[in-house]
Amino acid sequence: MSGSNSNNIIKASLPRGQRDVYGSELREIKNIVSRITKVYESYGFEELSTPAFEFSDTLGKFLPDSERPNAGVFSFQDDDEKWLSLRYDLTAPLARFVSENYDQITKPYKRYQFGSVWRNEKPGPGRYREFLQLDADIIGSDNYIVDAELLMLATDSMRSLGLSEQNFNIKVSNRKLLDAIIELIKIDDDIDENRRLTIFRAIDKLDRVGISGVEKLLSEGRKDESGDYTKGAQLSKRSIEKILNFISIGSTARNDFINQTKEIISKTEQGPIAIDELIGIDKLLSELGYNQEISFDGTIVRGLEYYTGTIFETNIVLDEKKKEEMPIIGSVGGGGRYDKLISRFRKDQVAASGFSIGVSRLVTVLKMANFDKFEDNYGPVLILNMDKEYQQSYYQIATEIREKGISAEVYLGSSGMKAQMKYADRRNSPLVIIEGTNEREMGIVTVKNLIKGKEISNMIENRDQWINNDEIQFEINRDQVVNKISEIVSEIDKKT
Amino acid sequence: MSGSNSNNIIKASLPRGQRDVYGSELREIKNIVSRITKVYESYGFEELSTPAFEFSDTLGKFLPDSERPNAGVFSFQDDDEKWLSLRYDLTAPLARFVSENYDQITKPYKRYQFGSVWRNEKPGPGRYREFLQLDADIIGSDNYIVDAELLMLATDSMRSLGLSEQNFNIKVSNRKLLDAIIELIKIDDDIDENRRLTIFRAIDKLDRVGISGVEKLLSEGRKDESGDYTKGAQLSKRSIEKILNFISIGSTARNDFINQTKEIISKTEQGPIAIDELIGIDKLLSELGYNQEISFDGTIVRGLEYYTGTIFETNIVLDEKKKEEMPIIGSVGGGGRYDKLISRFRKDQVAASGFSIGVSRLVTVLKMANFDKFEDNYGPVLILNMDKEYQQSYYQIATEIREKGISAEVYLGSSGMKAQMKYADRRNSPLVIIEGTNEREMGIVTVKNLIKGKEISNMIENRDQWINNDEIQFEINRDQVVNKISEIVSEIDKKT
Repeated sequence: MSGSNSNNIIKASLPRGQRDVYGSELREIKNIVSRITKVYESYGFEELSTPAFEFSDTLGKFLPDSERPNAGVFSFQDDDEKWLSLRYDLTAPLARFVSENYDQITKPYKRYQFGSVWRNEKPGPGRYREFLQLDADIIGSDNYIVDAELLMLATDSMRSLGLSEQNFNIKVSNRKLLDAIIELIKIDDDIDENRRLTIFRAIDKLDRVGISGVEKLLSEGRKDESGDYTKGAQLSKRSIEKILNFISIGSTARNDFINQTKEIISKTEQGPIAIDELIGIDKLLSELGYNQEISFDGTIVRGLEYYTGTIFETNIVLDEKKKEEMPIIGSVGGGGRYDKLISRFRKDQVAASGFSIGVSRLVTVLKMANFDKFEDNYGPVLILNMDKEYQQSYYQIATEIREKGISAEVYLGSSGMKAQMKYADRRNSPLVIIEGTNEREMGIVTVKNLIKGKEISNMIENRDQWINNDEIQFEINRDQVVNKISEIVSEIDKKT
Repeated sequence: MSGSNSNNIIKASLPRGQRDVYGSELREIKNIVSRITKVYESYGFEELSTPAFEFSDTLGKFLPDSERPNAGVFSFQDDDEKWLSLRYDLTAPLARFVSENYDQITKPYKRYQFGSVWRNEKPGPGRYREFLQLDADIIGSDNYIVDAELLMLATDSMRSLGLSEQNFNIKVSNRKLLDAIIELIKIDDDIDENRRLTIFRAIDKLDRVGISGVEKLLSEGRKDESGDYTKGAQLSKRSIEKILNFISIGSTARNDFINQTKEIISKTEQGPIAIDELIGIDKLLSELGYNQEISFDGTIVRGLEYYTGTIFETNIVLDEKKKEEMPIIGSVGGGGRYDKLISRFRKDQVAASGFSIGVSRLVTVLKMANFDKFEDNYGPVLILNMDKEYQQSYYQIATEIREKGISAEVYLGSSGMKAQMKYADRRNSPLVIIEGTNEREMGIVTVKNLIKGKEISNMIENRDQWINNDEIQFEINRDQVVNKISEIVSEIDKKT
């Protein structure tokens, strides 16, 4: 960006994939995060904050999408030539933190974390290179009850946003089920690591390509709409049939899923273990009233490495009309059990399970689905700046209003009254207070109620009626103004 | 960090100058930031969030300490070879944001921002390479009333932490006063840019080296305790006398300062302008009751470039005893008017004024001064995990307690009762709930009050008395336990 011209003026702009956040979007993010973290804390999770960058090899190559294992991270060298990278998720730093402080940590350790992560990827519409994640993890217990607790936590988090079972769902599977399927088809096909990943990738694409698409990806291969050809897993007919048989169960009531899946994988080694965990999770959830929101679904894959047991993802449900209008939106969060990640740093295995909410994505999807109905505040009460000599009086009024817990400001520019009123409008001020020379001599101030003004601007017939409407504009004694304003604002609060 | 050994185990550690924040320190940071931002919002400031890195030449070389203008920033190259840098403060990104969105922004624009900044400097005790700043700025008005408002805002922010005029002070000066001093001594000495900076740097060191130290730095030079020699400004005796005359006014009542300074700089061009601004600020502050906290002080410099008018800094005051024990602590924040910064991006000048609080530093200093007396919460109520078969009952109890707004958790590990009690202790749980087979058969649970237990552990004489104390441990019907716990917790809340 060497945009210097002859006057040495630099062009102000952001690198692609970076953005500023402010106004109602930032307020909404803070609102959502505050509601969800309140739930986390009620479950006994403690916040952790780790630095933005760490040693590159500490963070490792654990990007969820391992189709590009060597890219995706912003890295730079320290002055001692060690490589540092910006964190690409909040899990790798957690693994480092737990290992580094293993003996000091009270286990099971329940932490949550909120912060930016950075991905050095090609940005696109809605895809940024810095975005916010909100994670909850439990370290040090391999009990599936931990996974059940995380599912409850994820459900309660969505409920805290005012969403109900019609508005979101959580789909759960278990990586051991996928392992069981591999066991099954090994009877007919030779499955090396590469072929295994190709199979998982094919299943993961069910949402986008449908059953027939998955079938092609499991056999010869598939050409997509852009003409790109993806080579298939070259499986035998029998193997493909077994896989399609399994994934066609789809997302269904938990009982149903367990019964149908049991039939398919009962003779494998990993299958029954997975089923036992799913049964245990179902039992606890059912007894505690977590039913419609959480279904089992064998097509959930959640990345290719990393997870070892329960896996799940959370989706916002759009109504049918919206679905047609909009592109497929993936999950707003997900997670699962990853018992092997921390063993990068230790000889012994440390059990771990957790999930991550993509906050920026959640906000976008809530907006698309019209679920972003959180109250948005009006701006500050504005005291017009009419006369330099009266400035301390304006600040006195502002101070008194703030003491009532109401946001207030004195206009800080040097513009005339019209510009000041326009400023009030753009700041979404509910009320404007005017103290000019006339008012001051009489010991009064003039109050304009902008909210009332907007409310009844349609109903009013002529200018006189407007000016004379004493709900829109009125005079009041200086010593009564703060109480009156407090009264009006609490009426507005009641309505919103 | 290639700590791999034969087992490919990576050593978990952080790069120097990086750290994790958690527990009571993180809670304290959040508490402080939430109190201060509430004040900002009551003044009508709006939050802005900008990305962690930007184009390097957008951020510029505006590090406050220009003794090393070419270092201090973490930079890396994008795949199109453009240089990117992690932000080193929150002002440079604000200048970029304002310039990029100039026509859309409602002016005067009042924004606040909270976030990490990164400095590629040598870390030391209490000096990290990532730390938190909390900034408030007003863009688009060159009126000194803006500076007065920021001083009020800074004062109210400190007051919101429970600090009074005994615990903190704000020292104010004006860069034009320093310019006036330069005017004065130009009569006797030839002052080029280099010499000018050497003079400012000397004045800035008054705190550490005293008047005689400054005198040396203005004349030949000075050797410090480590033996390092700093070359002086080589000024004439007359010039040095004038400067010492000015800085010996020191930090004093605002009236006093104005009167004494007026005498010295009345015949300069810049001096009277500065004095007029100081008089205006004093008038407004006096009338609004901002007195003891804010003094004027001509020795404030605040970095060497960048500022153009009012400058100020906030200090936490330690009592005499603590001062002796501890090294000199600098300011916890400061700022001022910087009307030329935004013109890096624009032909016309954009007026700007603001200040920054060093949050990490503020937390450290508050702790040193014993002002970190914010309530620290107890942990979650712990329901012991006595019998796998009863798990849903434990979660049911936890859910009911959470519904009362109290944090609660079921023990998630597989350890015995002793370990679970130890966990409760380490989590600072106020209460523990036990439902074993006996209890379940009788329809009761056992409650242990750990807070009460700690309270009276000193007063108790023998084990029987302990076990039989029914405030420390009691049985209660299952259907009454949640109300009872709610009662006990609200009693604890009242006490703290």
